[in-house]
Parts: sequence; structure tokens; C-alpha cells
Amino acid sequence: MKAQPLNDLSRCCVHSITTKPWTLRQAVENYSSIGIPAITVWRDALKGIDPTEAKNMLDDSGLEVVSYCRGGFFPHRSSEDRQKAIDDNRRALDEASGIGAPLLVLVCGAAPGQPLTASREQIRAGMEAILPHAEACGVSLAIESLHPMYADDRSAINTLKQANDLAESFNSPWVGVAVDVYHLWWDPDLQKEIKRCGENGNLAAFHVCDWKTPTKDLLLDRGLMGEGCINLREIRTWVEEAGFSGFIEVEIFSKYYWQMDQSEFLNQIVKAYLKHV
Amino acid sequence: MKAQPLNDLSRCCVHSITTKPWTLRQAVENYSSIGIPAITVWRDALKGIDPTEAKNMLDDSGLEVVSYCRGGFFPHRSSEDRQKAIDDNRRALDEASGIGAPLLVLVCGAAPGQPLTASREQIRAGMEAILPHAEACGVSLAIESLHPMYADDRSAINTLKQANDLAESFNSPWVGVAVDVYHLWWDPDLQKEIKRCGENGNLAAFHVCDWKTPTKDLLLDRGLMGEGCINLREIRTWVEEAGFSGFIEVEIFSKYYWQMDQSEFLNQIVKAYLKHV
Repeated sequence: MKAQPLNDLSRCCVHSITTKPWTLRQAVENYSSIGIPAITVWRDALKGIDPTEAKNMLDDSGLEVVSYCRGGFFPHRSSEDRQKAIDDNRRALDEASGIGAPLLVLVCGAAPGQPLTASREQIRAGMEAILPHAEACGVSLAIESLHPMYADDRSAINTLKQANDLAESFNSPWVGVAVDVYHLWWDPDLQKEIKRCGENGNLAAFHVCDWKTPTKDLLLDRGLMGEGCINLREIRTWVEEAGFSGFIEVEIFSKYYWQMDQSEFLNQIVKAYLKHV
Repeated sequence: MKAQPLNDLSRCCVHSITTKPWTLRQAVENYSSIGIPAITVWRDALKGIDPTEAKNMLDDSGLEVVSYCRGGFFPHRSSEDRQKAIDDNRRALDEASGIGAPLLVLVCGAAPGQPLTASREQIRAGMEAILPHAEACGVSLAIESLHPMYADDRSAINTLKQANDLAESFNSPWVGVAVDVYHLWWDPDLQKEIKRCGENGNLAAFHVCDWKTPTKDLLLDRGLMGEGCINLREIRTWVEEAGFSGFIEVEIFSKYYWQMDQSEFLNQIVKAYLKHV
């Protein structure tokens, strides 16, 4: 399939964290007014807002709520902390349900000082523990594999193959996978694993941004689409060939962009989305 | 096999870059006097030194020269630049031979702005071009797979599987693989690929340091063995089970440690080597 640019914003979603300096209300108003039809809400954006007020705000805006970010962080060295994480994930599912988000994205976690194999087992156990509540809430879980540079303390799931293996082991309509180009672009098996993810009905979300050269911060120096080296359009083609036709979510953490006027940044996002995704 | 600490320094090698503030002469004298029997020489350490003088200095010290770092960086967008890289790698082989190093470590390279698949093909082509000269020099080539966070501009070879695939495709006694814990520790296939690497006679070098949490710089914030989360002793056991009994090379790039008194740092390296590797 020949990759084609996107003609309009009909599949564009922006993560509230992308415009972190804005309140949820500012994000909702500005996304709507520029023609972006969807939002993924981060947990921090709900702080200090009454849940009903947030739900009404989102409903009134007409924005589709694509995902809620984020649950996860299951691995801990003590069982007490693991239980706290499970309880917190149940609350996150309630919050997701409360704002009408059909999907909770899981940054699975890792505990430095214990083997990755132990963290991986704790991730599986944590997901098993919350899955019944996810079903009861009507909110699916999306395993997001994170870049290997986050294997120490953010995620012991670092390749799409691992995410696929884990998702398939649940064999549940309530468990899927989030494909994020930032974490996965380097993987020589990416095309194959995206195909597998789609064929097994697990491709639940697609996140885009770019990888800058040089990257100055491991966490907060993501690039706007087109300013880095990621083969964005090619990966989008693989995702679509795998049967995904959902929203394309712009998720950028950037100290640089958060210092900008956020309306100007949003203009740049829209242009970059249409030109480079 | 139960992992055991190393009892002495007989297999300890230090990379000259680890104590970057030192001249080659200072490194050689200090490594020798503390009982370290081997050195891997970085190219920058030879700058401004007559090659014969360097050779004599190393011979007189009794230090074994384990490797020369580094060749590679084959991918470039223009054929002219690719040819320059090949020529430069031939010079690096001459330099390695000149100081008696049996191995040239390859940081393979990547060119942002071209697909990783193109960079990978250019790496193969570059290695093919220099292999006859490597044989003529009596210097082997070691493919080092680099952490995926370097896939943009340092190496398009990012897993041990890729390095094994590439090394095996040459089927040459002059091509092997360097296993570096910093780049590979996160990989769920690491044990399997180390076994494969050894079984195919390709395990040519073993590099150690640690991954700190948080890591503040993508390049220059490596940790001393034991201060991070890498399962160092377990990986050493895998390497030894794969048949490797060569030197264990301490390779640490760190703005933090380079600011220290280097003699004190070397003391810490020796202690960390005996306690944590």
C-alpha cells in the first residue's frame, strides 16, 4: 500500500498532556475550536475538577474521549505496594468510566532492584487482578510497550512482541495493545509485530510524535511529527494494513514545547499531523 | 550454574575512555600499578602520540591490549561519505594492528533521515569492504549492538539478535560480536542470544558498567557496576556458560566520574568489579 497523507483532522486526537500547561477546559475548548475531534485525557488533567463537571465539559464539547492515561505501574518489591497499585488502577478504571473513556492505557511499570522477569510476572498478576473491574466498568486495558530506555523504572514491557505475547495470553476482548511510534520505531520486528497485533484483534491505540536528534532528555524531549527520524507514515501504513482505522493520537512530552504559547503549539501540531503522519 | 564473584583482577580490563581525563601514559601507569592486567585503547587516547611510542609504552607496561575502540559509523546518505567511512575504518585497523590490538570494536552507525533498513544494509556493505584489510592486519571486527536509544545516529544494530544475524552472515573467523550489558540488559531474549553468540564462536568481547536510575544523560551518565539495576552477575554467568573466558571490560562514560580524581575512581572500579561483576 502506498502511504498517503491524511486529508483532514477526522482521525486526529490530542493527549491532554501534550498541552500540559492548559487546564482540561482550555484543552477542550482549544482542541474543539481548531477542529480536532478527539481527546485522550491524562489523569493529572482531572485533578481538582469534579468528575461530573469534567464529564459534562467533555460531553458539551462534542469531543470524543479516546483513552484515559494512565494506569499500570504494577511492579513493586513489597506485596503491600503491589496491592496499592492494584487499588489505584481500579480507581483509574472508575475515573475512565466516569468521563466516558473506553480504554485505559497501561504504562506497566518496573521496580529497579528486582529482575525484569519478576516485574513482568507482577504486571501480569496486576492485570489479572483488575480485569474483572475493567469489564464491569466497560473500560478496556491497553498494554503500552515502552522504549527500552525506560526498562529500569517505567516498564518491563519493552517490545511490541512482549506486549503481544502478554495481551494474547489473556485472550480477552478487554485487553489490547497501544502502539506508540516513539517507543517502537527502532525495532527490526516492528512491521511483523504490528501485523500480528492487528490480526489478533489487539491493536487498540496508535500514538505518534517524533524522535529528535539529539534527544536531550530521556523523558521530556519528544519531537513534533516531522522533526525527527521516525518513519511515521510508513508505520501508519503498517498499522492501517493491520486493520486499524481508529484515532491517531498525538502524545508529546516536551519541556521545550510546554514553554511555548500552547495555541501556537497546537497550530504546529495540526500542520505537522497533516504533513508528516 | 551458580554465579560467583570474581576473586581477583586477572580478567579485568579497563577502557581508556573510562578514565578519559588521563593521557594514555597515565592510564597505562595507573592501571598497571593497581594490578589491572589489560586495557582497551580508545582512538582519542592515541591522538598526539607517535604510534611507535604508544606501542612501546604498552609493551613496556606488560598490559594486554584487548581491543581498539572504535570503528564503524558506516551509514551515510552520500556514497562519498560512505567511502570516507570505509577509508577511515581501514586506518583504524592499521592503528589497531600498530598497538597490537587483536580486535576492532564497531559502533556501526546510523544516518538520521534514511530508513534503518538502509543504514543496516550500508553497515553490511562497509564491513564487507574492510574485511579483507582486517584479515591482512590480523585484527578481528566486533559488531557491538547499541541500545535502541542510539538508533537515530549511532547504531542501527540494536539487539544482540541483529548482531548475531549480521555476524553469522559473514561466516568469517574475523567477525564477531561485542556483548555490552548497558546496551542489552533489558532484552527479554538476552540469555538465548548470548548462548547463540557463544555457540557460533562469535562472542568476542564482554563490556560492563551499570544503568543508573534516573539516567540523566543519554550518553554520558553510565553507572559504576553495582549502582544501577543491571543483573550483572547473572549476565556474566550467561556469557561464561556460552564459553567466553576472556577479559571483562569496564567501559564507563560519565561526566560525573570524569570530574572525580581518576585514581580514586579507579579504586572504586576495582572494588565494584570484585563485588558486583
